[in-house]
Amino acid sequence: MKRRDFVKKLGAGALVAGSVATAGCSGQQQVAKSGGASSAKSYRWKIVTTWPKNFPGMGTAVNKLVALIDQMSAGRLKIDVFGAGELVPAFEVFDAVSSGTAEMGHGAAYYWKGKSEAAQFFSTVPFGLTAQEMNAWLYYGGGMELWQELYQPFGLIPVAAGNTGVQMGGWFNKEINSPADLEGLKMRIPGLGGEVLRRLGGTPVNLPGGEIFTSLQSGTIDATEWVGPYNDLAFGLHKAAKYYYSPGWHEPGTTLECIINQKAFAELPADLQAIVTNACKAINVDLLSEFTARNNAALHKLLTEHKVELRSFPEDVLKELRRVADKVVAELADRDPMAKRIFTSFHKFREQVAAWDNISERAYLNTRI
Amino acid sequence: MKRRDFVKKLGAGALVAGSVATAGCSGQQQVAKSGGASSAKSYRWKIVTTWPKNFPGMGTAVNKLVALIDQMSAGRLKIDVFGAGELVPAFEVFDAVSSGTAEMGHGAAYYWKGKSEAAQFFSTVPFGLTAQEMNAWLYYGGGMELWQELYQPFGLIPVAAGNTGVQMGGWFNKEINSPADLEGLKMRIPGLGGEVLRRLGGTPVNLPGGEIFTSLQSGTIDATEWVGPYNDLAFGLHKAAKYYYSPGWHEPGTTLECIINQKAFAELPADLQAIVTNACKAINVDLLSEFTARNNAALHKLLTEHKVELRSFPEDVLKELRRVADKVVAELADRDPMAKRIFTSFHKFREQVAAWDNISERAYLNTRI
Repeated sequence: MKRRDFVKKLGAGALVAGSVATAGCSGQQQVAKSGGASSAKSYRWKIVTTWPKNFPGMGTAVNKLVALIDQMSAGRLKIDVFGAGELVPAFEVFDAVSSGTAEMGHGAAYYWKGKSEAAQFFSTVPFGLTAQEMNAWLYYGGGMELWQELYQPFGLIPVAAGNTGVQMGGWFNKEINSPADLEGLKMRIPGLGGEVLRRLGGTPVNLPGGEIFTSLQSGTIDATEWVGPYNDLAFGLHKAAKYYYSPGWHEPGTTLECIINQKAFAELPADLQAIVTNACKAINVDLLSEFTARNNAALHKLLTEHKVELRSFPEDVLKELRRVADKVVAELADRDPMAKRIFTSFHKFREQVAAWDNISERAYLNTRI
Repeated sequence: MKRRDFVKKLGAGALVAGSVATAGCSGQQQVAKSGGASSAKSYRWKIVTTWPKNFPGMGTAVNKLVALIDQMSAGRLKIDVFGAGELVPAFEVFDAVSSGTAEMGHGAAYYWKGKSEAAQFFSTVPFGLTAQEMNAWLYYGGGMELWQELYQPFGLIPVAAGNTGVQMGGWFNKEINSPADLEGLKMRIPGLGGEVLRRLGGTPVNLPGGEIFTSLQSGTIDATEWVGPYNDLAFGLHKAAKYYYSPGWHEPGTTLECIINQKAFAELPADLQAIVTNACKAINVDLLSEFTARNNAALHKLLTEHKVELRSFPEDVLKELRRVADKVVAELADRDPMAKRIFTSFHKFREQVAAWDNISERAYLNTRI
């Protein structure tokens, strides 16, 4: 379905309680309806997700989110969780919430690049922002307002609801000692990261999760990225690959999102609206904390019990990846005027926050070597 | 007032909704009362803070916190904000909430080292955890349970409610080129950081905020630490010092806290309990995001408009500071059995999370130089 069809189908939708809606693609300024006062009225919603039900981290965070909303609303808003494929397939989550089949969805914005390539900025882009920087851009750098504006024509309200932190570079059966080793490399790496690899002579392959292990073991692919130690250990990738490379230059802090159907949101009283968006905010920091704590324990296990060989990408490889990634990401700005505005905001914020992190987070972490 | 008096005065207090209370110092296991169901009953609370009212960052976050609770509770829980000195002085916040003069307080745990030196682990310690790591330890590393146990005998429930991120090393009128330059250095630096300086031959000075500027300008002190660019720019310290040093080894990610009177909390219905603790969680990530975004803009201003000379502590200075800091922090474990348990948990988590961050956050941030 095209974007303009959504614009026609959906009227003015309330954005986050208390905020003023930004202009949609139609160019009209709309003022947010703030829902009515509290009432005893109960609601039953559905949330569809891009993860298998109870998937460690991403999936379990959704369970926590709905429990939190249940608790804070004293049971006035109950939400049933549907894993990928249970109500709709993973990649139809966006359309399902947009059309109102479900009131909420949980996933990551880069899955919706078919709707708008600029959506990728709201999950992660190669050599983009860390988790802490993403939150700073979204909450205090103008990012959230642009995200709301981007999803507005689709009848959706986006909310940040989780972050993986810096991911791993991936599992390799070939050593990467110089940029030349990327040439001919067959790697399962989707999206912009894959495009960067392609321009450096590699062959990005797109495989669903279920086929990765066998492909890696049989040599059909030389390498694959996945998430980080916590998810990777459970997936068993260490049994099919020799080397575990860091850092995850292609996903330095992936924001997970909740998307909420505008019409359903507008029907909630103001207190439930605030409960929904702030439960997402609590889960945002909670999931990042879970990954930070559990990645570290899983890494320990991978290194000591499974004798995984940990490698770092050489400096000249990272430099080449960065040089090409900056081009690939900048090209997104040329897609349309909205993509241009998002890229401009993101890029400016990244430059400034990098200057600060250089003397704070980076300088501090380097005292630990 | 001594800890045992609190134990006598306070009965079983509900901890965070849905959790089981840990053993208090009395050694008794207590099961949390989860408040009743939702009701139309209204509550009016007071929150006392260790910051001046509307203080940028820390103070304004408290205003946001009470607005959030008001919104999510549909006005059933209204909280009046009192800045430092308005109802009680800053350093009496802990006692005021403990005794029930106010139902809530906002500050930082290291202010209460007079009650228990181990409290400092729940704000920050020299060469301790970054903001992201603190949240991981608190939410998923056992830190929160220990914090609840530590405050339980005082009739208080602690909740993380903000983080400054890595602070700056401070404002100096003397260059620090080697560890020898710390000898004789008169620096305003309180707490454990001050003790580290003292052991390296310096003279830590304790000055209230209002006297720092004049003391620095007149040469009574050679240096001072404060917070970071956002707060420092507003404070005007760049007009009284030559050099701005990084990183803030003594405060690598200071957690700010809400303390809640147990009895007042137990009287709330379960939905309001969940709203209070999760509003704190939302503010936790919100304030860190604000500092991350604004520090960076303020730093830019300090460097370009005010021509501040930015310096990094030399590697051998940081090494010496770290060597001594590790001793000073480890000594806390010898105070009492509870301090020992807290130190042991903190120390183990720091070792493991550092191994993970070394190949994730640190490795990624280093690709940016």
